[in-house]
Amino acid sequence: MTFTPEIIGYLAATLTTASFVPQAILTIRTRDTESLSLGMYSTFTLGVLCWLIYGIYLDDKAIIFANAITLLLAASILCFKIYNVVYRKRA
Amino acid sequence: MTFTPEIIGYLAATLTTASFVPQAILTIRTRDTESLSLGMYSTFTLGVLCWLIYGIYLDDKAIIFANAITLLLAASILCFKIYNVVYRKRA
Repeated sequence: MTFTPEIIGYLAATLTTASFVPQAILTIRTRDTESLSLGMYSTFTLGVLCWLIYGIYLDDKAIIFANAITLLLAASILCFKIYNVVYRKRA
Repeated sequence: MTFTPEIIGYLAATLTTASFVPQAILTIRTRDTESLSLGMYSTFTLGVLCWLIYGIYLDDKAIIFANAITLLLAASILCFKIYNVVYRKRA
């Protein structure tokens, strides 16, 4: 197997997408979102949605796949955060 | 100004990079990292480092710029998390 720069790109995409799995598990398990920023998750979720639309425009399956998964994870975390802010009167 | 798909790409990159600013501010201000996942920030920071290396390979200034900023923000949050785990015996 020869080294190609694309491997670094795929590794980067895999790591940044996969990283939201432990955060989503922690948030779903504990329901604690106090140290999570609402501003971050709102902006990030919107940004990942834009990446997904961009991937659909380009018809790039790697961008679509990675961002569809990240969107699902980030949106789940955002839902817990919004729920806690609205119903529990705490961040 | 005509609409081009690239605008969605730039918007996506701006939003996902900028999203870490409110999280970094919240973490630096409160020092609270209890609901932040160590697994997420370790994996994400490594992933963003890979994106930065990939950008340097491609000589793509947009990828380099966006990921250099994200790396700085994500690494700062990771440092607070590691500090809390090691010295405060709490997540």
